[in-house]
Amino acid sequence: MKAKLISLAVATAFTAQANAGTVTSDGADIIIKTKGGFEAKTADGDYSFKIGGRMQLDYNSYDGVINKEEGETGSDLFFRRARIEIKGKVKDWGYVASYNLTDSGSIDQLNTTYLGWGKTALLTFGQQKENFGLEDTGSSKWTTGMERSLPASAFDTGNTVGIKLHGATDLITYNLGVFKSAIDSDDNSLDTAVTGRFVVRPINSDGVLVHLGAGYTMRDGEFDEIGARLGVRGGENKTANKVKAEYNSGFTGDEMSAWNLEAAANLGPVHLMAEYFDGEISGASGTPDLEADGYYLQAGWIVTGENRSYKNGIAAFDKVKPKGKGGAWEVFARYDSLDVTGGDASPLVDFTGEEAQTLTLGVNWYVSPAVKIALNYVHAETEVKKSGEDDGDALTARLQIAY
Amino acid sequence: MKAKLISLAVATAFTAQANAGTVTSDGADIIIKTKGGFEAKTADGDYSFKIGGRMQLDYNSYDGVINKEEGETGSDLFFRRARIEIKGKVKDWGYVASYNLTDSGSIDQLNTTYLGWGKTALLTFGQQKENFGLEDTGSSKWTTGMERSLPASAFDTGNTVGIKLHGATDLITYNLGVFKSAIDSDDNSLDTAVTGRFVVRPINSDGVLVHLGAGYTMRDGEFDEIGARLGVRGGENKTANKVKAEYNSGFTGDEMSAWNLEAAANLGPVHLMAEYFDGEISGASGTPDLEADGYYLQAGWIVTGENRSYKNGIAAFDKVKPKGKGGAWEVFARYDSLDVTGGDASPLVDFTGEEAQTLTLGVNWYVSPAVKIALNYVHAETEVKKSGEDDGDALTARLQIAY
Amino acid sequence: MKAKLISLAVATAFTAQANAGTVTSDGADIIIKTKGGFEAKTADGDYSFKIGGRMQLDYNSYDGVINKEEGETGSDLFFRRARIEIKGKVKDWGYVASYNLTDSGSIDQLNTTYLGWGKTALLTFGQQKENFGLEDTGSSKWTTGMERSLPASAFDTGNTVGIKLHGATDLITYNLGVFKSAIDSDDNSLDTAVTGRFVVRPINSDGVLVHLGAGYTMRDGEFDEIGARLGVRGGENKTANKVKAEYNSGFTGDEMSAWNLEAAANLGPVHLMAEYFDGEISGASGTPDLEADGYYLQAGWIVTGENRSYKNGIAAFDKVKPKGKGGAWEVFARYDSLDVTGGDASPLVDFTGEEAQTLTLGVNWYVSPAVKIALNYVHAETEVKKSGEDDGDALTARLQIAY
Repeated sequence: MKAKLISLAVATAFTAQANAGTVTSDGADIIIKTKGGFEAKTADGDYSFKIGGRMQLDYNSYDGVINKEEGETGSDLFFRRARIEIKGKVKDWGYVASYNLTDSGSIDQLNTTYLGWGKTALLTFGQQKENFGLEDTGSSKWTTGMERSLPASAFDTGNTVGIKLHGATDLITYNLGVFKSAIDSDDNSLDTAVTGRFVVRPINSDGVLVHLGAGYTMRDGEFDEIGARLGVRGGENKTANKVKAEYNSGFTGDEMSAWNLEAAANLGPVHLMAEYFDGEISGASGTPDLEADGYYLQAGWIVTGENRSYKNGIAAFDKVKPKGKGGAWEVFARYDSLDVTGGDASPLVDFTGEEAQTLTLGVNWYVSPAVKIALNYVHAETEVKKSGEDDGDALTARLQIAY
Repeated sequence: MKAKLISLAVATAFTAQANAGTVTSDGADIIIKTKGGFEAKTADGDYSFKIGGRMQLDYNSYDGVINKEEGETGSDLFFRRARIEIKGKVKDWGYVASYNLTDSGSIDQLNTTYLGWGKTALLTFGQQKENFGLEDTGSSKWTTGMERSLPASAFDTGNTVGIKLHGATDLITYNLGVFKSAIDSDDNSLDTAVTGRFVVRPINSDGVLVHLGAGYTMRDGEFDEIGARLGVRGGENKTANKVKAEYNSGFTGDEMSAWNLEAAANLGPVHLMAEYFDGEISGASGTPDLEADGYYLQAGWIVTGENRSYKNGIAAFDKVKPKGKGGAWEVFARYDSLDVTGGDASPLVDFTGEEAQTLTLGVNWYVSPAVKIALNYVHAETEVKKSGEDDGDALTARLQIAY
Repeated sequence: MKAKLISLAVATAFTAQANAGTVTSDGADIIIKTKGGFEAKTADGDYSFKIGGRMQLDYNSYDGVINKEEGETGSDLFFRRARIEIKGKVKDWGYVASYNLTDSGSIDQLNTTYLGWGKTALLTFGQQKENFGLEDTGSSKWTTGMERSLPASAFDTGNTVGIKLHGATDLITYNLGVFKSAIDSDDNSLDTAVTGRFVVRPINSDGVLVHLGAGYTMRDGEFDEIGARLGVRGGENKTANKVKAEYNSGFTGDEMSAWNLEAAANLGPVHLMAEYFDGEISGASGTPDLEADGYYLQAGWIVTGENRSYKNGIAAFDKVKPKGKGGAWEVFARYDSLDVTGGDASPLVDFTGEEAQTLTLGVNWYVSPAVKIALNYVHAETEVKKSGEDDGDALTARLQIAY
C-alpha cells in the first residue's frame, strides 16, 4: 500500500515535470518568487536578491494661475517616475539600488544598511531618504494624491548621501542622520544636513492606527528660494507655476532649517492625515531671511473596504492591496496651504504668489497590487496674481505599474 | 519491482542533487529559463519576469558622398545599440522597460499593456513603437540590412509616448494610436500624432507568407527637415552625410503626414520585401511645404535553408534561428531610393543631394540564436554633388549579441 | 525496509515544501545561486546569467598640496563607483554589461568574448579593459589602496572599445589588442591604440606566487597632458590637485606610448607588489614631447592569515575572502613616485608639481565576501609648490558592498 502511494507520488511528480529540467541551488535552499518582478532568497534568510521597477505615466491639463503662460491651457503626457530597483541582503548587510530612467538617468537611492543590531537600530549608508515628514517619507507609489502637498513639497529634503540611524518597534519609530546637504554640491567644503524624526503610535492594532510625530532638519549650503508648484508638475515642458519667495540674483541664504508636526489615523477603510511645516532660510550677511509655513489636511475612504497598509519601519503609509476582482476604489480630499511671506520685507526678495491654497479631490483605482490608476482634480488659489490670474484648475491622471 | 524502480528513481534524484539545495517557490509553481538572459514565469501564466539585453558593435568605413569631409575616408568603431531589457507580466498587465546604455542613457521603450481582452485587442500605454512601416516595426536586431532603408529612416516615427490599440489574428494585424509627437517637446501645448497601420496576410502557412499592408501617420509639432543618411551612421563622430530638404534657419513646418504601402513574401528560405513611402511637412504660414517619397526593394536567401521568422502580433519579420552547428548564412540585396525635391521651390528651403539611391549587398551569419555577424557593402549615388562628390562606397560590419 | 526509507525520504521532501510550489526549468537542468546578487546557469555549462552590482561610498579630507584651494581643507562624501553588472554565457559566447550609475550613467564595460578556443585564446570584442599594468588590470573592488598609485593612474588606458586576444595557463598570461584610442573621439578618422602585456609566474602553488610581467601601449589621438592626482579624488567638487605636465592651450601631442615592468609576490598572508612605468607623448609638428616615469612599491599583510586571491586569467590580484566571523584585517604601505619633467624644456609646456611622491598607509577590513571597509592615510610631497604648498595630507575612508 505504502509503496503504491509512493509510486503514485513519484509518478505524479515526474509527470508534472515531463520535458522539464530540475532546478537546484549550489548550496543553501532557495525560495523564488515572481509577482511581476523577481526575487530569490535563501531559506535561512541570510541572502536575498530582488529586482523590479516602477512606471508612472501622467497626463495633465491645467490653466489659470497653475500655468505659466497667461490665458492658455498647458498639458503634457510624460513619465513622472520610471525606475529600475534592485534590493538584497548579504548576511548582516542589506542594499538598495534604485535608478531613475528618466532625464538620461540618475541615482534615486543607492545605499547599504547594517542589519546586525536588529530592527530597532539600523544604520544606512549612502543615498537615501532623510525621512522628514509623513507624506515625504512614504513611497511615491502610494501617496494618496498624485503629487505631494504644497508644504511637503516645499520642505522636501530629497534623497541625499549620508548616514542614518533608524529603528522601530510597534510603538515608536525614530531616525537621526547626517547627510551631505545636496547631491551635486560644488563647494570645496562639505555642506552637511542633520535630520531627525520621531513618531509614536498610541494605538496600532486591528486596523486602527493613531500616528503622532515630529521632525526637524537643519542644513548648510546655498539656498536661493523656498516654495512649491501648485499641485501639478507640468511635465517636460516645465510650464507649471510655483508659489515661492526667492532672493534676487546674486543673493543667497547659507542655512535652512525646518520642523514639522504630523498626525494620522487609519480607521479601517478611512484614513485621516495632517501635517504642519515651518521653516526658514537664514540669509548670509546683509541678506534677509526667508520664512515659510504651511499645512495640509487629508481624508480618504476606500469604498471597497480595504485598509491603507502602514510600515512601522519608516512610520508611513504604504500600498493598498485590493481584495476583490474589481480592485479597490478610493476617494479622497486634501486641502493644503503654503505661505512664503513670513520673512523680512526686503527689496532683495522676490515673492511670486506669496500664499497659496489648493484643494485636491481624487479617485484611486488599485486595479491589482501592481497597477494603480489615479484621477485628480486640483483647484488652486494664490493671494497675488501670477500670469495675470489668482486661481486655476487642473485635471491630472496617472497609470502606474509597480513590479 | 515497483518499489525497486521507485528507489532507483529517488536515489537518482538525490544523487544528482548531492551537495545541492532545493529550490521552491513561495506559492504558484514557477518555470525558469536561461538562454543567456533569465526568465521566470508561473506555470499558470499569471506572472512572468524576463531580463536580457543586446549589444551591436559596429565598424564602418565610408568615402565619397557618404562622408561629410571631402576627399577623405571616414571610419568608426562604436556601439550602434546597447540595451538592457526587462519584460514581464502581472496578470492582465504586461510591461516592458528597455534602456539604452549608450550616450549616457535614455529610455528606449517603457510601457505597460492591458492584456485582458486577448490578442485581438491590446492596449499599450507609454513609450513604444508607433508601428509605421514594415521595416521600422520589426526589431532592429533582425533587420536584414544593418541600417534600415532610406525611406524607412526618413519616415521613422521613433519611439514615442502614447496609447496604442493593436491586435492580430492569423489573417490580419492592425494598430491605431495617439502619441505625444516628440519625446522632448518643449511646447506648452501637447503636440500629438495619430498613427495607424493595417496588414493582411492572404497566405500564411507552411513557411509561405504573403504580407500586404498600408499605414498612415499625421503629426503636429515643429519640423525643420526631411531626409536620411546614406546607409551609414558614422558613429560618434557623426560625419556621415544626409540627403535632405530643410528649411532655412528660423523657418519650420507645423504638421507632418506620411503614408506607406508594404508588401512582403516569405518563400521558405527566400524572402522578398518592398515598401513605398510618401509624406510631406506642411509649412507654417508663409513657409513652403516639403515633400518627399521613396521606396526600397529587397531580396534575401538563407543559403543554409532556414526561414526568417515572422510575428503576426506586430506583422513584422523577426529572428533567424540556425538549425545546424555552423549557424545560418544569409545573402541579400536591397535597392532603395529617396527623393526630397517634391515640395515647393523656395529660397526658404535648402536641398542637399535632392535625390539618392543606395544599393546594399550583404551577408548575415546567424552564428547562434544569440549571436549575429553582419557584413554590408553600400554603394550610394546622389543627384547633386555633396562634399564635392555624387557617389560613394561604404563597408560596414556588425557583431551582435542578444541575450 | 527499502520502501520505508523511500517513503520517509519522499515524505520529508514533501513536508519541506508544504505550501510551496515547485520550480522547474523548461529544458536543461539549472542551478541557481544568490549571495546577494543572483545567478542561474545550466548544469551542462552552456548557458548562464548573473546580475549584481557594486557601491563604493567614499569620504575624504585633504589639505596642503593635495587641495587646489590654498590654505583650506577639502572634503567630500560621494560615490566613487556605483555599478550594475550583468554577465552571462550563451554557448561559445560570453558577455559582460557593466553600467556606471554615477554622473547620469555611462558604460563601464560592454563586451562579448568568443570562448570556443578555450582559456588559452579568448577573443573579446567591445568596451573592455586593455589590461596594461598589474594594478590597473585588477578590479577596482580589490585594489589594496583605495586609489591606484600615481604612475598607474597617469598611464591608465581606461576602458576602450576594441578587440583583444588574451589567454592564460598556470605559467603565463598574455593579451594583445587593438582599440579605438578614446571612447568619445570626435575625429573623422579612427584613432587606434595597440596594447599588449605578458606575465610569467615562475612559482604559483600552495599560496606562494611570483609574478613577473611587462606591458606596452601605443596610442594615436590628441593628448594634452600627462599626470595624476595625489592619491585623492576629491569627489564631485573636483578640488583635488594634479601633478602634471600639460601643453599650453592650442597645442597637443598626437601619439602616446608607454611601457611598464611589474613584479609581485604572494607569500601566504603577505604580498609584495611593484611596478615601473615610462611613457611619452610625442608632440605634433613644432610641439615638444612630454615624458614621464614613475614607480610604486607596496607591501601588505593580512593579519588574520588569509591570502589575497589571484586570477591567472587576467594576471591580477582579486578578492580577499575572510575565513573567520570577525572578517579579515589587512594592513599595508605603499610608496609611489611620478616625475613628469622628462620632456623637452619649452615655453609650450606647463608643469604643475613636476615630481611627486606619496606614502599611503592603510587598513582594510574585509567584513564579509561582500563588504569591505577601508581607511587610508596619504602623505604627499611635490618638488614644486602648488596652491602655495609642497606637501599635504589626506584621510580617506570607504564602505564598499559588492553583490
